[in-house]
Amino acid sequence: MNKTFDTIFEQAQRAFLMYKSISVKKKAQFLREIAIGLENIKDNLIPLASSESNLPEGRITGELGRTVGQVRLFANLIEEGSWVEATIDHADPERSPAPKPDIRRHLTPIGPIVVFGASNFPLAFSTIGGDTVSALAAGCPVIYKAHPAHPETSRLVAKVIEEALSKSDLPQGIFTHVEGGIPEGQELVKHPIAKAVAFTGSHVGGKALFDIASQREEPIPVFAEMSSVNPIITLKNILKRELESLAKSYVASLTLGAGQFCTNPGLIFIPETFEKEFAELVKSELNEVASAPMLHEGIAKSYYSALEYFQERPELEWIKVSGKKDMIKSQPALAKISSEDWLKDSTFQQEVFGPFAFMIVYKDENELLEVATKLKGQLTISIWGDENELQENLILISLLQEKCGRLLFKGVPTGVEVGHAMQHGGPYPSTTDSRSTSVGAYAIKRFARPIAFQDMPQSLLPEALSDSNPLGIWRMVNGEFKK
Amino acid sequence: MNKTFDTIFEQAQRAFLMYKSISVKKKAQFLREIAIGLENIKDNLIPLASSESNLPEGRITGELGRTVGQVRLFANLIEEGSWVEATIDHADPERSPAPKPDIRRHLTPIGPIVVFGASNFPLAFSTIGGDTVSALAAGCPVIYKAHPAHPETSRLVAKVIEEALSKSDLPQGIFTHVEGGIPEGQELVKHPIAKAVAFTGSHVGGKALFDIASQREEPIPVFAEMSSVNPIITLKNILKRELESLAKSYVASLTLGAGQFCTNPGLIFIPETFEKEFAELVKSELNEVASAPMLHEGIAKSYYSALEYFQERPELEWIKVSGKKDMIKSQPALAKISSEDWLKDSTFQQEVFGPFAFMIVYKDENELLEVATKLKGQLTISIWGDENELQENLILISLLQEKCGRLLFKGVPTGVEVGHAMQHGGPYPSTTDSRSTSVGAYAIKRFARPIAFQDMPQSLLPEALSDSNPLGIWRMVNGEFKK
Repeated sequence: MNKTFDTIFEQAQRAFLMYKSISVKKKAQFLREIAIGLENIKDNLIPLASSESNLPEGRITGELGRTVGQVRLFANLIEEGSWVEATIDHADPERSPAPKPDIRRHLTPIGPIVVFGASNFPLAFSTIGGDTVSALAAGCPVIYKAHPAHPETSRLVAKVIEEALSKSDLPQGIFTHVEGGIPEGQELVKHPIAKAVAFTGSHVGGKALFDIASQREEPIPVFAEMSSVNPIITLKNILKRELESLAKSYVASLTLGAGQFCTNPGLIFIPETFEKEFAELVKSELNEVASAPMLHEGIAKSYYSALEYFQERPELEWIKVSGKKDMIKSQPALAKISSEDWLKDSTFQQEVFGPFAFMIVYKDENELLEVATKLKGQLTISIWGDENELQENLILISLLQEKCGRLLFKGVPTGVEVGHAMQHGGPYPSTTDSRSTSVGAYAIKRFARPIAFQDMPQSLLPEALSDSNPLGIWRMVNGEFKK
Repeated sequence: MNKTFDTIFEQAQRAFLMYKSISVKKKAQFLREIAIGLENIKDNLIPLASSESNLPEGRITGELGRTVGQVRLFANLIEEGSWVEATIDHADPERSPAPKPDIRRHLTPIGPIVVFGASNFPLAFSTIGGDTVSALAAGCPVIYKAHPAHPETSRLVAKVIEEALSKSDLPQGIFTHVEGGIPEGQELVKHPIAKAVAFTGSHVGGKALFDIASQREEPIPVFAEMSSVNPIITLKNILKRELESLAKSYVASLTLGAGQFCTNPGLIFIPETFEKEFAELVKSELNEVASAPMLHEGIAKSYYSALEYFQERPELEWIKVSGKKDMIKSQPALAKISSEDWLKDSTFQQEVFGPFAFMIVYKDENELLEVATKLKGQLTISIWGDENELQENLILISLLQEKCGRLLFKGVPTGVEVGHAMQHGGPYPSTTDSRSTSVGAYAIKRFARPIAFQDMPQSLLPEALSDSNPLGIWRMVNGEFKK
């Protein structure tokens, strides 16, 4: 049974005051214990996560690799240490009219974080996913709300974290595993000790948490990664050369993991000269894709009701209809629409979670400019073109930048790289905070805030800010980067 | 007459698409034109701002210097260029199982910003104050809502910005001066083209804008710097040595600018052994302070009604009562309370805008720990102690860090340094976003969001991200800082 939420948060708060002060070495060691622990249980974890999520073991194996890699990335990041943005302005007692004080600033963890697990990534966006590990790396305790779609997987991973805490002599309050439904999730977000929320999931879920968090007596930030249809815009010349391979890689991305990725490319814009040929190619590729089980029955049900809804719409011509409705397996589908019709109704921008897309046929580049203006905020936008034709579409590229967090010029949006430069977060409604990312090294910045120390004695300064720079980190000193 | 808000925002949006793309050289040049323009009109501007704000010309002269200095700081900052956090992860086509793409990320301006002027800084937090200039430096157009307390000053400064735009051949939509009251301000925040809001002022005002912005169809961030009582905690040993000079500098800070600073120290904690002596010294200092005109009648009225309210409270002993109520001038006041009573009622943490403070008498360090736990979020907290006694209060210092954006060990919180290391922003309710600052170089980060480019051809990459690093900025390349 869950402890009461008050108890959980009070323990987290006590643990926080201790955890924020331990050395980065010790924090990194704790994270690496988790990585080792995950590797140690992989023979149990992979089949379990696979059976609870309906995702094939191959996919889960890859996801585990990514998850462990992420944990090590953050261990390395905090050990390197420059992420705290240490900034030092030296005093000038002689300055007139007033002496200049010594001011030093760095990032400090914000406090206990509520993290929600995602159903579509039982490992990489769940118990020790990117949200949890970036919060722990920042120095924040995590209260983790398990996703009910994979409870056993979550419990198993939680045990790894709890054991890593024991091995590292750290208080258990640094990580708490909580189970429950929507009401419990809402209670967590409302708790006065919570300082921020991280969420990956549906628009409805993310927006509800955002509203609760903004309406608290003390509003707190919600980093919700919600919905995105990840448009791909294709230009003529590249299609001339690579039509077949582009159609192949498009279908592969659309149907990967039964289309259950936040970067699933749900819109593809095709110039009318290539409409027929591309449709043919995509159709024949789609016919090769076997139906695949979705994460759970609820998701399959939503997928088929969305398709039913769109099948009533007269604007659409179906290149591939999904076969008969299945209680759990999804079958890919593709509907064609003119960009003129598409522009008239934003319903055609709605995310359909699963292997479904709109193929939008456009007449000319002017129509694309209008599309770029009307597009809602996205995690990713891809623009496929030859270098020359990209050069001829600079205004389009400029407009598209306003609508996404990542702009791709080759390849497909699925398969999000975990690295320093990754940005996985875009303008609303793709996330609730376009200034943040939930994948990659910068994800840590969500859980820290700046604090400045004025005229603090050297003996009291955090190591990141003391004159001798014992951590050997990059710092900005009197306006210049130095190590 | 104001143009319609639709027209204003549409012009700003068009200007944005152009302005975001011009070179940093050109942006910096535009900012420097503003600085020169301000200096050119100083003989008119200083007496005008002084007469509209009731602030003495000496103070306005200093404020103008700070304002011009800020404009040049941001011009230098964007010319140096490293603030965009350029991050490059090179491709690895040989990687298995999947080739690694080339990903490059930097900060990009978020779009048109609504800035609200503050009454207490007719220059430094107004028309071309820190909010406007950091937004312009980031590459965002500004829709500026003038504070009705100093309309002529605001118009004069707006003219300088408009002329700088003309001289720099930039569209006027980059800066729009809007006048009006609360309804107009709310309309601006509601406008769908607005991407963020910056505000300095009362808690009621800031919170109302935050609520409106969170409840929009597309929620947008509000950077509101609202209320703070900036506690000063004094420890025994330093008082033993420096009682007299500390009392002097305390009173000077409390009554500076008639107490109308967001960093005004409205709470001072004194150990009971020094209670009488400190009270005597402060009282005699306060008696030397002449009453001073407040910004406007409304503020003077609020000041006296707050004092009237507190004069009814039996827990308080008045060391200095303000003299007779004045329609415009404030007279300093100080009330004493035991920390036991202070802890019981958070009303004693309420900001009284003006030269009023609570002197809170504490028994021992345990009481201070409780105080630190109960304190609301603050822009600043000061702790005055000898190095030895600070060392004995590490837990207290750790707790205080959770409650502020800047922690001072010497000096007074008023007189906020404008520099790289400054943090002017703290936990709620002092601001609505503790992860941001409204003073200093980092203020620019509020108005930018990351965007990543995947496999973008070199010829299309922004200069900050191209291989040759033509801007010569610091970048993180494959996880290492480089120039």
